[in-house]
Amino acid sequence: MGQNLTLIIPVLGALGLVYTFWKTNWVIKQDPGTERMIRISNAIAEGAMAFLKAEYRVLAIFVLVVAVLLGISGSQDLKESSPLIGLSFIVGAFCSGLAGFIGMRVATKANVRTTHAARTSLGKALEIAFAGGSVMGLGVVGLGVLGLSSLFIIYSNMGWDLIKVITVVTGFSFGASSIALFARVGGGIYTKAADVGADLVGKLEAGIPEDHPLNPATIADNVGDNVGDVCGMGADLFESYVGAIVGTMVLGAAFIGVVGYENTNQFGGLNAVLLPMVLAGVGILTSILGTFFVRVKEGGNPQAALNWGVNGSSLIMIAASYFIITWMLPESWQYQDMLSTAPQTMTANGVFFATILGLVAGLAIGFITEYYTGTDKAPVMKIVHQSATGSATNIIAGLATGFMSTMFPVLVLAAAIMGSYYFGGLYGIAIAAVGMLSNTGIQLAVDAYGPISDNSGGIAEMSELPKEVRGRTDKLDAVGNTTAAIGKGFAIGSAALTALAFFASFVEVYNKTHPDSMISSINLLAPDVMGGLFIGSMIPLLFSALAMMAVGEAAMDMIKEVRRQFSDIPALKAALAVMRKNDGKEMEHWSQQDQKTFHDADGTAEYGKCVEISTKAALKRMVLPGLIAVVTPVVVGKFGGAEMLGGLLAGVTVTGVLMAIFQANAGGAWDNAKKMFEAGVEIDGKMYYKGSDPHKAAVVGDTVGDPFKDTSGPSLNILMKLMSVVALVIAPLL
Amino acid sequence: MGQNLTLIIPVLGALGLVYTFWKTNWVIKQDPGTERMIRISNAIAEGAMAFLKAEYRVLAIFVLVVAVLLGISGSQDLKESSPLIGLSFIVGAFCSGLAGFIGMRVATKANVRTTHAARTSLGKALEIAFAGGSVMGLGVVGLGVLGLSSLFIIYSNMGWDLIKVITVVTGFSFGASSIALFARVGGGIYTKAADVGADLVGKLEAGIPEDHPLNPATIADNVGDNVGDVCGMGADLFESYVGAIVGTMVLGAAFIGVVGYENTNQFGGLNAVLLPMVLAGVGILTSILGTFFVRVKEGGNPQAALNWGVNGSSLIMIAASYFIITWMLPESWQYQDMLSTAPQTMTANGVFFATILGLVAGLAIGFITEYYTGTDKAPVMKIVHQSATGSATNIIAGLATGFMSTMFPVLVLAAAIMGSYYFGGLYGIAIAAVGMLSNTGIQLAVDAYGPISDNSGGIAEMSELPKEVRGRTDKLDAVGNTTAAIGKGFAIGSAALTALAFFASFVEVYNKTHPDSMISSINLLAPDVMGGLFIGSMIPLLFSALAMMAVGEAAMDMIKEVRRQFSDIPALKAALAVMRKNDGKEMEHWSQQDQKTFHDADGTAEYGKCVEISTKAALKRMVLPGLIAVVTPVVVGKFGGAEMLGGLLAGVTVTGVLMAIFQANAGGAWDNAKKMFEAGVEIDGKMYYKGSDPHKAAVVGDTVGDPFKDTSGPSLNILMKLMSVVALVIAPLL
Repeated sequence: MGQNLTLIIPVLGALGLVYTFWKTNWVIKQDPGTERMIRISNAIAEGAMAFLKAEYRVLAIFVLVVAVLLGISGSQDLKESSPLIGLSFIVGAFCSGLAGFIGMRVATKANVRTTHAARTSLGKALEIAFAGGSVMGLGVVGLGVLGLSSLFIIYSNMGWDLIKVITVVTGFSFGASSIALFARVGGGIYTKAADVGADLVGKLEAGIPEDHPLNPATIADNVGDNVGDVCGMGADLFESYVGAIVGTMVLGAAFIGVVGYENTNQFGGLNAVLLPMVLAGVGILTSILGTFFVRVKEGGNPQAALNWGVNGSSLIMIAASYFIITWMLPESWQYQDMLSTAPQTMTANGVFFATILGLVAGLAIGFITEYYTGTDKAPVMKIVHQSATGSATNIIAGLATGFMSTMFPVLVLAAAIMGSYYFGGLYGIAIAAVGMLSNTGIQLAVDAYGPISDNSGGIAEMSELPKEVRGRTDKLDAVGNTTAAIGKGFAIGSAALTALAFFASFVEVYNKTHPDSMISSINLLAPDVMGGLFIGSMIPLLFSALAMMAVGEAAMDMIKEVRRQFSDIPALKAALAVMRKNDGKEMEHWSQQDQKTFHDADGTAEYGKCVEISTKAALKRMVLPGLIAVVTPVVVGKFGGAEMLGGLLAGVTVTGVLMAIFQANAGGAWDNAKKMFEAGVEIDGKMYYKGSDPHKAAVVGDTVGDPFKDTSGPSLNILMKLMSVVALVIAPLL
Repeated sequence: MGQNLTLIIPVLGALGLVYTFWKTNWVIKQDPGTERMIRISNAIAEGAMAFLKAEYRVLAIFVLVVAVLLGISGSQDLKESSPLIGLSFIVGAFCSGLAGFIGMRVATKANVRTTHAARTSLGKALEIAFAGGSVMGLGVVGLGVLGLSSLFIIYSNMGWDLIKVITVVTGFSFGASSIALFARVGGGIYTKAADVGADLVGKLEAGIPEDHPLNPATIADNVGDNVGDVCGMGADLFESYVGAIVGTMVLGAAFIGVVGYENTNQFGGLNAVLLPMVLAGVGILTSILGTFFVRVKEGGNPQAALNWGVNGSSLIMIAASYFIITWMLPESWQYQDMLSTAPQTMTANGVFFATILGLVAGLAIGFITEYYTGTDKAPVMKIVHQSATGSATNIIAGLATGFMSTMFPVLVLAAAIMGSYYFGGLYGIAIAAVGMLSNTGIQLAVDAYGPISDNSGGIAEMSELPKEVRGRTDKLDAVGNTTAAIGKGFAIGSAALTALAFFASFVEVYNKTHPDSMISSINLLAPDVMGGLFIGSMIPLLFSALAMMAVGEAAMDMIKEVRRQFSDIPALKAALAVMRKNDGKEMEHWSQQDQKTFHDADGTAEYGKCVEISTKAALKRMVLPGLIAVVTPVVVGKFGGAEMLGGLLAGVTVTGVLMAIFQANAGGAWDNAKKMFEAGVEIDGKMYYKGSDPHKAAVVGDTVGDPFKDTSGPSLNILMKLMSVVALVIAPLL
């Protein structure tokens, strides 16, 4: 029976992939609309694929070098397994890249088809956009479960002890995290350089909106949405998902050989190791089920439809978890971990509570996120008010909101850590992260739906479709924010818990492989631990600085290129002059001649040049932050020792969480403050709209928040896990 | 001999105070200038004193409540000593307040006298401004050494064991830190609300500079310089100084009873306890000596004069330290601290090296600070360039610079922690902080000289003195930046080391008072320690958020009040209209009538209203951040236990250091980027000056940086020490 269960897991993974192929084909069969729409969407798709190719070419070198290093670096007793760590690393990296690719490919098909559907029907448009998102969601979880369980089954049959099997599997997680970090940083730099550039052009060159076809940066901007928000997010969630599962497996291995544990379960003590994979596999089923709940009729509420899907499948998942956990784990057993002085009673119910605690904590962080960034909520209103006195007070308010917003999530997280430990020991902390992520399939479907509808709006604008089309896509775009906020809560919460699980695993593995110099404690009073803590805490700031500088400088290059095109391309120059002349007038009231001049400029902007700037900047500037993440733990571990490395991991996790929350929420709050002006907002009894001085101040805040929330912020979640998984992988070599 | 030495220390402290009285009288005897100047400076002095009175009234309540709580909270064996902890607390708070008062009183006398001297001579102006600063500097160190050593002598004669004596003395440090935190936060809110308000009025209401007599916020702005930069800084440095000394004393007490230690020194084993006080006392002498080096002739270089004073006395102090340390401590002895498993050899030379290491680390952090914030250096130039594309890119660049600037200081600090431990154990970490601060007297003299010359420039402007006067005061104001940067380096470095010393002391004292539940390790793997670490790390962000919100909102109130005055006061309204009419013209070319209208408005602005807004905001908004700092360790210690409290302290120290560096440097870099535009700067081959678009963008950055560098940033240094000293004080009660 144990063997059968093990074999069922990859089948569930494969099922996710089958869904993916089926939905992709469905999306492709939909009508892409007019010739102009197709041309634009092709330009976006080509730019995105070109970037992905260039990016993967760079990453392939990195992957090969690291794989070889992993393969040859094995100490005596790891000689036979370390080449396989290298192999796992390659497979993990490949799956992560593939997950991004699958998501992006369908996103670049779904966007224009959503636009076309929005010409007639909101429901149909939602269906297509969500189908695109669900391909991404199920692709990620399918690849994760299939890849991980396949490797586990193969390595289990090598005749090794379990700790070796799992150490080798850890390579998979390492590969996934590496690619995810590069994809997030690279994609983030790409999209924000283009976005900030396109935005500022509008302000500086007066009157050209971001998505306007005359804006040479507009294609780069839309490509960016795909490579950053879709592909980057896919790789990101893939690594979270895999990381949480692997972290739990490593800690689950500690139960093997515990007296009374082996005897009471049917898989030779392996259950705690298999449990996270089983939960993830069943999560694929519930996610697929959930996608069928998402339906909306014309005039219906898309938000309600998405909620139905996510909440429905979550509830099923919670119920399923209870049965799975109590079925797979013994009712109770005695276990003594490295923190306790006497054996403690562990129970299946305790593990279930830890899982639920993770879920509750993730939800809570999500709702707090929504409070601090939500339109009409007090924090955003404060930013709106402070915009009345200019951009400086807007910025101060946004930064303060971001700082403030760390308080409750951190309290929730501290409670979750202590609580899940109470219920399930170190294993409980790890499984809490799995609890948050078991529903990743549908959760990510909703997340990825966002950039697809955003993109479809851009295409509507560039194709000069009637206003009601943009209205429908905007309506699609506006919903799903709550789900996205909760997704962020899960991402941050699970990152913290997974990083801690890896941290504990690192010490377990180090002790197993260093019986003569076992670590009983990472003592904060020791100066090397404190030194490591200081250095680790600094890394997220350094990392953010590099990402922000990359965006700032690439955006400047972008602006210079756009200015050059505006002065060098005659047709563009003429169209611009005409636009200024007819400032604010609807186009139908322009003179015939002016309309002609304007339309003649169509397509003369050299979009490719802007795409190239973003591509180059992203590829060049993603390398250093990525290397810092991989190299630092190795250097500190080698020269400072395992305890200092422990300090480093704790530091990077804690500050990483804080900076991730701060940046995500400051960015989100600024964004929504700006959006409130676009809808019109009252300050001290006066109404302000788009174009007013307070709105301009709010645009500054939004621009500052862009690299925060879409480049450095989300990368930090990966950073902390990557650094701790590197420590885990090198633990036997220290 | 031991007894004599102990008695010499307070004499050295008293000597510092004698110097203070002597210099204060000298300053007062100088000519305060014209009647108009006297009127303005009186308005500033009155506003400042009024605020101080109001502030101290609030703080007196706080001090009394805490003192009573301390007095009655003693557990069984502390019954007799705990009222004296309360007493020490009151004395510490009083001395801290007094240090601020002395400094501010002389500053409000020295400013106008410096202005008057600047009408004729740069050298004389420097002499007065520096005399004002040196009163502050010597007042702080004099009070610190006198207060601390007197209490120590008194309590030593109570017949208690040493650990009890020192625990009681710790109350002095607690008192000093509490007042310092409130003074920094309150003063910081006051000054930045006024400054941001006055600044923005200039931008929003077009053409009224900060220091213009028609600007109703101008007096509040100048009062702010005194209550924030002078008084706040005095209380701040007082607490750093006292904290470093007390932290070292506590750890020095551990040497008592060490075999071989008592036998080889002449004060019954007390030397390690007395050493920091002796070093501080001798530092008073070298500081006084240093002040005599500061002289400049007309046409001379004020910077060189200040350097002479600081560097000269530093060198003497280093040499003196060597002789003092090798004289007071045994050549070597065996000691086993709580971190080591076997006794280790400690040496006097090692302790000296640790002291020097502290000094070197402080200097290094200072020079790094100067690099990241210095005019013409690469980071500031990058911000200047990014200002060309608007305020958003200016802000992104400044934030990135601030994040980036944490890297090297943190590496230096980690090395200093590990190195000073290597040389002198935990005691070495503490004495390294004393090494940085032994020269506080002259260091602070130079720091306080800054706001005095800044104020004198403001008075020159408001009194409409000839331009060359402002030129001279600007010249004075421009120098001393390097010294100030190094002062910041010392402040941050010593704060981190002192906080760690308190952290270690906390565990020592806890173990001494809880022999049944001794802590051998604060284990990062334990979930409660990790929870504490998370919560502690979040506190500096929460704290910063509260301070920034206070500044942002008070600045808005200020702006609204100024707008009201501009529309409600007819004379002001008329003068404003006349100013706009003659936009840019020198006043002598205005019509007679216009000149009259303008002068008629003189004094009609209701400065008092603006002073009141700042005062109220500061008093109201300083309470919550202060209470959080004091209450959090108590709550976490009581309900989470000593280990969780340990995690909390580590977290607040690490993130506190990072946030302090980030905020100080981002603020400093923005400030200097703005200043570069005022002098004129070339971007891409084009020159930009004051009033250009890039300059306006740079002003936004400067305004955002204001609360960073002058409100929340410097408060964080105090915060981390205050929280750890609270832990130390409550350790016996947990």
